[in-house]
Amino acid sequence: MRPVFLRCVRTLCLGFECSRGRLSMRFCSSHSAHSKADDDDVIDAFLDHRQIGAQQELYMINPLTPGSVFLLPHGTRIYNKLLAFMRAQLKVFGFEEVISPIIYRKSLWETSGHWEKYKEDMFEVGGRNEETKEEYGLKPMNCPGHCLMYAAAERSYRELPIRYADFSPLHRNEASGSLTGLTRVRRFHQDDGHIFCRPDQVQREIKASIKLVDNVYKIFKIPSYRLLLSTRPEQYIGTIQEWDQAESSLREALDESGQPWLVQNGDGAFYGPKIDILVKDSNGKEHQAATIQLDFQLPQRFQLTYRGDDDTLDHRPVMIHRAVFGSVERFMAVIIEQIQGKWPLWLSPRQAIIVPIADRHVGYAREVKEKISGVPSGDREDIPDFNISTFYVDIDDRASTLGHRLREAIKKSYNYIGVVGDKEMADGTVALRPRTGKPVVMKIEEVRQFFIDSVARYE
Amino acid sequence: MRPVFLRCVRTLCLGFECSRGRLSMRFCSSHSAHSKADDDDVIDAFLDHRQIGAQQELYMINPLTPGSVFLLPHGTRIYNKLLAFMRAQLKVFGFEEVISPIIYRKSLWETSGHWEKYKEDMFEVGGRNEETKEEYGLKPMNCPGHCLMYAAAERSYRELPIRYADFSPLHRNEASGSLTGLTRVRRFHQDDGHIFCRPDQVQREIKASIKLVDNVYKIFKIPSYRLLLSTRPEQYIGTIQEWDQAESSLREALDESGQPWLVQNGDGAFYGPKIDILVKDSNGKEHQAATIQLDFQLPQRFQLTYRGDDDTLDHRPVMIHRAVFGSVERFMAVIIEQIQGKWPLWLSPRQAIIVPIADRHVGYAREVKEKISGVPSGDREDIPDFNISTFYVDIDDRASTLGHRLREAIKKSYNYIGVVGDKEMADGTVALRPRTGKPVVMKIEEVRQFFIDSVARYE
Repeated sequence: MRPVFLRCVRTLCLGFECSRGRLSMRFCSSHSAHSKADDDDVIDAFLDHRQIGAQQELYMINPLTPGSVFLLPHGTRIYNKLLAFMRAQLKVFGFEEVISPIIYRKSLWETSGHWEKYKEDMFEVGGRNEETKEEYGLKPMNCPGHCLMYAAAERSYRELPIRYADFSPLHRNEASGSLTGLTRVRRFHQDDGHIFCRPDQVQREIKASIKLVDNVYKIFKIPSYRLLLSTRPEQYIGTIQEWDQAESSLREALDESGQPWLVQNGDGAFYGPKIDILVKDSNGKEHQAATIQLDFQLPQRFQLTYRGDDDTLDHRPVMIHRAVFGSVERFMAVIIEQIQGKWPLWLSPRQAIIVPIADRHVGYAREVKEKISGVPSGDREDIPDFNISTFYVDIDDRASTLGHRLREAIKKSYNYIGVVGDKEMADGTVALRPRTGKPVVMKIEEVRQFFIDSVARYE
Repeated sequence: MRPVFLRCVRTLCLGFECSRGRLSMRFCSSHSAHSKADDDDVIDAFLDHRQIGAQQELYMINPLTPGSVFLLPHGTRIYNKLLAFMRAQLKVFGFEEVISPIIYRKSLWETSGHWEKYKEDMFEVGGRNEETKEEYGLKPMNCPGHCLMYAAAERSYRELPIRYADFSPLHRNEASGSLTGLTRVRRFHQDDGHIFCRPDQVQREIKASIKLVDNVYKIFKIPSYRLLLSTRPEQYIGTIQEWDQAESSLREALDESGQPWLVQNGDGAFYGPKIDILVKDSNGKEHQAATIQLDFQLPQRFQLTYRGDDDTLDHRPVMIHRAVFGSVERFMAVIIEQIQGKWPLWLSPRQAIIVPIADRHVGYAREVKEKISGVPSGDREDIPDFNISTFYVDIDDRASTLGHRLREAIKKSYNYIGVVGDKEMADGTVALRPRTGKPVVMKIEEVRQFFIDSVARYE
């Protein structure tokens, strides 16, 4: 059982998938690999993210680039919304987004230790003619690049913590036989963050990181989660005193979180202790999502320092790696399965569709679409303000029966279907039908305001 | 002169820089390479983007990854704002953003012709152990990937045009000696777009593309621009009839644009005619920015088809490559130089700074910062709505003189400096000082509304 579990909690790595290829990071609550019976319990009621992804045209895969997912328009809408959401949270928690390079010379990866220890999972890059043939590594993680940014200037104890966030694409050369959907891929994006701080700031940063995770999970209606502290293993770097201090900071932060937490003695990484966060889905299964890892090693390998209040540079920052979504692609897969493709309005790639009853209502339907969506047509002279709320509103004015078009709209999981006919056209209204429940007739402006208000409440 | 000019107008490529490394795509209005005298005229009054970039900490470069720029926090703010702005425009013009893979097997690049014709500029990628050693190319352009997306489903004449937008990172192995700042790089991002349409839709699409360019240039206050049509060269693919039809569509679209345009006979690419857009900066210099290129070749190489109204698949779409910014990094450089680092509020990475007069005003200063910025502190219980406007507001509460802190804020090019003392604290106001002109005392809420209104007007 243990080896499986150990793979599970490597959140900063790509994670893994159960043997049925259904869900990433799934293991049962007793921390053993989940049994076939567990799967079979839910198999009928349950569509996996690949089925829903195909139905909703969220992504595609092509053999010319195995493991690199193409996010199609509707998948990109979700991805971009997740990033916009996370960017807003990051501002609150004092992170600064950066865009770091994707290829680095071999010597960087030698310094970080990846070239040797991560060999199997890395891609190498070189120029195609002999003159430019340099050895590069395609980045599997952002941390070494962020160390270079930290090291680019002399840092003072006063300016710490420095918190970088980065959504760069990462590449890991997973075995081709294991590639599946959005969960086991070679190219993916993390909501990655690295905090460089003083040892005395660790506890506050950990506490804030747990709060960020808690905030995000509330929004995604994740009912409960558990925190798992992994402590000093037999092989470690740094001093026992550093470890004791770090672990005690983590314990205090965990106590303050008000969430249940467990210890796994000796399960920390050799470079530092860590907290993994396990969430329970609606089926009662646990997944690992977020992670918060202390790192004493990279600051040492990159010789990172800061000028302390003693005016010397003999101070080494602690580095914290943390991710809330983890892999954005895998998080999408988890959410897709959790909500079974029934997106809440705020995250939905298909928020509404306007269906005119007859040909004579098509012009009005277009007006309704434009007004609710907040997206003017390209023929207009005015240039849109890019800060106003916009919504994904389609129109189905094809020459088929109303019933047929309504059935298709329901199948495509639109949050709202707006039907317009003579009465609506005369009154400036829309008969707005939610996924469940009866249609409500509303003024066009009321619909738009209702959408704005719903999204502000993350509904 | 001519060879230099020919390089200039290859917008979809990385572009080039003048011999002084000062500005990308610069050439004088007579279309000859610009002379040394041209440069010397402005040399004293002018800071180049690398100087301003360093002053404002917008980006950095590290020899471990030559030509791959690290966008630092303030540079990333500008980059993200440019993308948010462009995404809003793309919605209006019916583009759908996608996120396509970054590495593709060699055979894709053989199909597209890049493996052979673009050899010098491409990086190759492979797994690091023998078993996984496959040959990949790191993408220098998005077009072949978009062809795969088009080809993933049967397309009907009714669903065309399909318009993909993509901001993926691209890599081109430029000679190391030529790398400079943000303008001559190896890793960059384009506001790339590909339109797949029927031949009868070309004119409308070109017209819309010109309108999009026009809209965007208005926002960036680019005073005037010229359009340049390049027609069938001696070596070409496709039929004369196709070329004539395409060129006549382009001519009509150009006429309708109401902008002056010129023809360069025989200067089109072998795969199709194109329109390049030359803009004049405040010094009267011309730069190439946007490009709109017809392509008969890739749809043929990828055997792209659509089902016509005759119900057969014997129809080949036309592909239009177009970019408005071109390279986002280079566009940033052009704008930085044009405005000499004096960002308008909407695009500014440093919108305001609050300076408390004395220690007793620090608490109030923090409240002002939070209310104007719209970014609550992380200790709050409420989770921020990610759709509300936020602003980049800093605080300088260091223990140095007011005069010193004001001088530093001015040097850092903040758009507004908000000074708060006893009177402001008592009245709930801020003494808001713009870059030029006298301070105005305003209520906190008025400042925030003023910012919202200014940004909505792209000021």
